[in-house]
Amino acid sequence: MEKDFYGDLRLGILGGGQLGRMLIQEAINLNISVSVLDPDRDAPCKKLCDRFEAGSLIDFDTVYKFGKQVDMLTIEIEKVNVDALEKLEEEGVVVFPQARVIRLIQDKGLQKQFFKQNDIPTAPFQLISSKDALKDLTIPFPYIQKLRKDGYDGKGVHKIADEADLANAFEAPSLIEQWVAFEKEIAVIVARNDKGDVSTFPMVEMEFNAEVNLVEFLISPSILPFEIQERAEQLAIKIAEDLQIVGLLAVEMFLTPDGNILVNELAPRPHNSGHHTIEGNYTSQFAQHLRAIFNLPLGNTAARSNAVMINLLGEANYEGLAIYEGLEEVLAEEGVYIHLYGKKFTKPFRKMGHVTIVNEDREKAVTLARKVQATIKVKA
Amino acid sequence: MEKDFYGDLRLGILGGGQLGRMLIQEAINLNISVSVLDPDRDAPCKKLCDRFEAGSLIDFDTVYKFGKQVDMLTIEIEKVNVDALEKLEEEGVVVFPQARVIRLIQDKGLQKQFFKQNDIPTAPFQLISSKDALKDLTIPFPYIQKLRKDGYDGKGVHKIADEADLANAFEAPSLIEQWVAFEKEIAVIVARNDKGDVSTFPMVEMEFNAEVNLVEFLISPSILPFEIQERAEQLAIKIAEDLQIVGLLAVEMFLTPDGNILVNELAPRPHNSGHHTIEGNYTSQFAQHLRAIFNLPLGNTAARSNAVMINLLGEANYEGLAIYEGLEEVLAEEGVYIHLYGKKFTKPFRKMGHVTIVNEDREKAVTLARKVQATIKVKA
Repeated sequence: MEKDFYGDLRLGILGGGQLGRMLIQEAINLNISVSVLDPDRDAPCKKLCDRFEAGSLIDFDTVYKFGKQVDMLTIEIEKVNVDALEKLEEEGVVVFPQARVIRLIQDKGLQKQFFKQNDIPTAPFQLISSKDALKDLTIPFPYIQKLRKDGYDGKGVHKIADEADLANAFEAPSLIEQWVAFEKEIAVIVARNDKGDVSTFPMVEMEFNAEVNLVEFLISPSILPFEIQERAEQLAIKIAEDLQIVGLLAVEMFLTPDGNILVNELAPRPHNSGHHTIEGNYTSQFAQHLRAIFNLPLGNTAARSNAVMINLLGEANYEGLAIYEGLEEVLAEEGVYIHLYGKKFTKPFRKMGHVTIVNEDREKAVTLARKVQATIKVKA
Repeated sequence: MEKDFYGDLRLGILGGGQLGRMLIQEAINLNISVSVLDPDRDAPCKKLCDRFEAGSLIDFDTVYKFGKQVDMLTIEIEKVNVDALEKLEEEGVVVFPQARVIRLIQDKGLQKQFFKQNDIPTAPFQLISSKDALKDLTIPFPYIQKLRKDGYDGKGVHKIADEADLANAFEAPSLIEQWVAFEKEIAVIVARNDKGDVSTFPMVEMEFNAEVNLVEFLISPSILPFEIQERAEQLAIKIAEDLQIVGLLAVEMFLTPDGNILVNELAPRPHNSGHHTIEGNYTSQFAQHLRAIFNLPLGNTAARSNAVMINLLGEANYEGLAIYEGLEEVLAEEGVYIHLYGKKFTKPFRKMGHVTIVNEDREKAVTLARKVQATIKVKA
């Protein structure tokens, strides 16, 4: 690419949510000119980018036309029109992550087939095209049904425990996965630039809110045995290299009670499991994504201290203009970093922000995180 | 104030330069709605704020009208119309720092009188209203002549060494200061909120570029004797309390060879001597300024590690569209944080950005800072 990243080069981001917002906060430091496409006129990125366009991310023409106005495209959400991206790539727009990578990851079925083809450990699965096929499954109850496409933030995922649950099954092309009794959910974010440099962030441990299937609590760095961390990080590197991705790749994994690591899902972009890196690591995931797509040297990913991240979700039963309770109380604590996402309206379990707690003492960080979680409430 | 800082409250910033830009980067985390007034249509804040208005900061009507559209005003530059701010205060707009504080600090003569009245140690001085009065000075050569108003970034300051230099003296109301043979230039940033909570950042040491009278190199935290650091921090607290300021106050001081601390100048806002706090301290000066003006608990100011900050100044002899040499080379080093200010055009010694280097080892941070300084060049 001829243009300097800090100069005339125009970066387009597909999606204008909180991931785009935090990416822009980092892009400001490098004078990067950012255009954003998002269907929501009040998207979190709206007022922070050089140019904002309200429009569909899945409409071919909209994405194509948006892409023709920039030099490089990246994403903050996978659900985008990949045909448009492929055409843009053919016409010389740099698309990182590459259209073929997004196409593969968009479809949980293709993702699983990719794991299988590349000897990447993952839970046993079958692909079905309709609900009807559930009766012929070889995978026993309980299992997970995931829509192949368009699931996000816990939506499009069902646990099917028995015959009775079949009534609730999705009537759409799905991935059926054997239920894994995992001990821990772990994640590694890896970055790869176009020179082929690859770098992982230290492995993190997550706790999920089972009710809504969202990450609720994340601890960095992990204190699981070094051997497990290394295995998880090597797996992430292998996947990044097998994909030849340019940009960030978040690799979510299960650690099973017998010490196996099974890859669950990929996200080819900054990810909720990397928000703690803003204050917790020398390089943030957002800075790393920019370094990767601009083919710059990758930054030092080491942890600066223990960091615990909690998501701020809209309280159940509240919908409307967001009110944040407890912010002042939380700001009185040391090492607490509040990130609100600029969403005017809350609804139950909507991701409204996150808080990172850093502390030299891991237990103190965890205790404080629990307190923050109990203190801040997003109501309406 | 009735409105929540993350909600309907509108914050106005007078000035849209790099200090406003970094303040906005932090304000994003708290959903703060920011309006900016700056005479330059391409000011660094232009594309990052909710509302940008191009207009004079020293014109009464422009500042007044801008202020009437917000709930709270703050500044990132002192040279603003204070009469308008006083009227806005009377009419219920919250102005932090207060108009009277800005008025006092705008005028280096009033600043010095304030030091004298409050027993704050400072170099001996005289105030003169015209060049003519220089012949009747009781202060011996060499001395410093500073314009009482509107000096900035080393402009409006002359050293007058002898009779021959008198020809170059400013013909305007000035402050004449006895030349201080100082050993170190040191600075402390202090914050005070409306509850009266006061908190200082650890003292830093600076190195100046004598040619252009700009901070070129800053080291945090200081390793001067604890007693000196404590004295400097206590002085900063005393000044903040004497002024009853709400917001940040940067206190620049000289440490003399015999161990005295003399207060040089004040800035009632985020300051170049606090840029390292973004990565070097638990709370950044920008986050702290927001906490102070919104009357929130002040954050932990402790250093997270050694940090060295260098300014990126436009190279001498280059003027035009800015080109940054050496960025990639510098990004290959660990713990290096580049901040470009979004200024399209460079000119000799213009502040175009800064770089902070953090390292557990102070000497390594200093060595790397020297390397960064020799590597990055802002040309045209």
